[in-house]
Amino acid sequence: MDRVDTPAGFRFSGMASGIKKSKKLDLGIIVSDRPADCTGVFTLNKVIAAPLIVTRPNIARGQCQAILVNSGNANACTGKQGLQTAETTLELLAEQLQIADDLVAVASTGVIGEPLPLDPFVTGIPQLVTNLSPDQATSVAEAMMTTDAFSKTAAVMEKGKQNYKILGLAKGAGMIHPNMATMLGFVLTDAQVAPELLKVVLPQAVQKSFNSITVDGDTSTNDMVLLLANGAANSALIKPDTFEAEIFSQHLERVLLDLAKMIVRDGEGATKLVQIRVVGAENEASARKAARSVATSALVKTAFFGEDANWGRIIAAVGYSGVNIDQNRIDINFDQVPVAVNGLAVGAKREAEATRVLQQDEFVVTIDLHQGKAESSYYTSDLSYEYVKINADYRT
Amino acid sequence: MDRVDTPAGFRFSGMASGIKKSKKLDLGIIVSDRPADCTGVFTLNKVIAAPLIVTRPNIARGQCQAILVNSGNANACTGKQGLQTAETTLELLAEQLQIADDLVAVASTGVIGEPLPLDPFVTGIPQLVTNLSPDQATSVAEAMMTTDAFSKTAAVMEKGKQNYKILGLAKGAGMIHPNMATMLGFVLTDAQVAPELLKVVLPQAVQKSFNSITVDGDTSTNDMVLLLANGAANSALIKPDTFEAEIFSQHLERVLLDLAKMIVRDGEGATKLVQIRVVGAENEASARKAARSVATSALVKTAFFGEDANWGRIIAAVGYSGVNIDQNRIDINFDQVPVAVNGLAVGAKREAEATRVLQQDEFVVTIDLHQGKAESSYYTSDLSYEYVKINADYRT
Repeated sequence: MDRVDTPAGFRFSGMASGIKKSKKLDLGIIVSDRPADCTGVFTLNKVIAAPLIVTRPNIARGQCQAILVNSGNANACTGKQGLQTAETTLELLAEQLQIADDLVAVASTGVIGEPLPLDPFVTGIPQLVTNLSPDQATSVAEAMMTTDAFSKTAAVMEKGKQNYKILGLAKGAGMIHPNMATMLGFVLTDAQVAPELLKVVLPQAVQKSFNSITVDGDTSTNDMVLLLANGAANSALIKPDTFEAEIFSQHLERVLLDLAKMIVRDGEGATKLVQIRVVGAENEASARKAARSVATSALVKTAFFGEDANWGRIIAAVGYSGVNIDQNRIDINFDQVPVAVNGLAVGAKREAEATRVLQQDEFVVTIDLHQGKAESSYYTSDLSYEYVKINADYRT
Repeated sequence: MDRVDTPAGFRFSGMASGIKKSKKLDLGIIVSDRPADCTGVFTLNKVIAAPLIVTRPNIARGQCQAILVNSGNANACTGKQGLQTAETTLELLAEQLQIADDLVAVASTGVIGEPLPLDPFVTGIPQLVTNLSPDQATSVAEAMMTTDAFSKTAAVMEKGKQNYKILGLAKGAGMIHPNMATMLGFVLTDAQVAPELLKVVLPQAVQKSFNSITVDGDTSTNDMVLLLANGAANSALIKPDTFEAEIFSQHLERVLLDLAKMIVRDGEGATKLVQIRVVGAENEASARKAARSVATSALVKTAFFGEDANWGRIIAAVGYSGVNIDQNRIDINFDQVPVAVNGLAVGAKREAEATRVLQQDEFVVTIDLHQGKAESSYYTSDLSYEYVKINADYRT
């Protein structure tokens, strides 16, 4: 992480506190030098982890100055004791930073149903605060990792009438079924943004990024995305319905989509990043539904892994998506290569070309329904032997 | 297949016609010595294979005397040529048997999007008819196999006031996501059953069996279950709303559930058969929804493969199922061993016992929601390395 990418007024610190038996980084904090305006998006799962129960009311107040995150244990399904632990860790950090408790957010990711030990926080938090630095964002990103193969950060810089930066940190690794991969995202900007604008742009950007790799509603017990704007860049306030607001929104989307693609690419055992693009749909909801159906089909994903141009599985996944279709009007392309036209195979020569597309580690599958003008994309990965290995042995 | 299990008046024949490159059995016929009353259940996929388009109107007329089935090619997404091929094969069999075209049903399973060759039918059908025999049901079951590791037949015999037999043949192998595993089922009885009763009992039995291993609506392009009753046992007509109808219905359910469990056990790469039983639900629909959510979770299934008593994944899958729950009231048992009580872990000793349950090749996961009195079960398998291997290499 280049210093250049770090928004002003934010400091970071990460460490190995002992929650993970592996002695890898597992505890981190992000601190703003002033209370930041903030908003959040939280899991829709009805089983909700303790840190979310503790954090949501704080974020709802609209101000946040510090984030405490641990990996190795999700503090989910841990009852009253888990709630107590989440509250205590929050208070420990607030006390060390000498800020109000309700300016702190806590997040956890890891195994469900095991008590989160308090000791690593008691000994770790003072050290973390001592070591706070503007150039340690990567340490926090690393301290968030569970099955992630690499840490995930993305940044943009606006240099125009306004000057500000947006930095995103995320953890998460794509799944066959994305329904339980905890996704944490922390997005920090030194821009000054109207609070009501924050509340609008974050859900929009999440929809086009994290929610286009995971299935809406099918979220883990711990999912959370927070956006903090501390205004430390000293640029003018970005108000809703302005050109500057549009620019900010686009930058935010870019950062979140970059992170989302990293999550797909870090799919557990994934070797390919595939954009499933449905065009010619009646409306956007239909396009999304069809794209999601294809993107989450285990058979489609194993065919990608096998580099098998098996468009039959794709058209069948569109067929059971529930979207209005005419099977005799569907075209499918792998990048620029047509493999099905009017629902029929285009022949062995084209299929050989399509197979070469599939041998790439990144490609686009375009499905034209010829029903209308709407389109939508999902990002998915292939499904490999490694996926099963990682998840069968996860807790051992 | 013991002769004893074969209902009177049905004959069978199977062969290797050359559709499969492997030279395994791939073409079969089932013939009744008289037109049988019949009914069917067909795929809900909007992409529908040619044999279904051709067969459905015939079955709708309520009479069927012969079934022609091939594996190795699904004749799906094959356009007008595919429809023509399905019709021609149907006519070829009708001609050989000297029966009306509309007494014949055709079914196909295998690769999607490749033309089904006609030659194997032209040369094969006369041979099949010549070799018809009451004791060749297993040959037909074998000729239906695609990724199936074993052929599937199940039978019951009623000996009471009535004497009749029910024989079921099926193909299909369970999937992570069952959404594209073609499921074919042919159920034959020599009982005489009122046509209106047939129409009621088949969908009911399918719901409790094949639809409790596969996700309703998420079906392949070729799914089809046919029930033929030819009355050759010369027992009294079974009428609706009678004790005899109830007995028949139970027998039918038993045959279909036996076949359904075989399909799960033959899950591609599966090593375990797991019943996901949700009890204490508000209503049956909720119980079904929660059970399905758990049964189709790739993370739950990989944990079964890893023999990891990871109940956190189970409770999270219940959480995102959309069903009303209170996470603090959920109990989870592996067979008789409690692993979670009131949404909390019960401790390491119990988990060790639970791990021993998971080491079995068949067990029951009971999830008590404590919301009401309804219950429902899904049957699922574990998810192993083999699944990925089989599906990545399917067409090669």
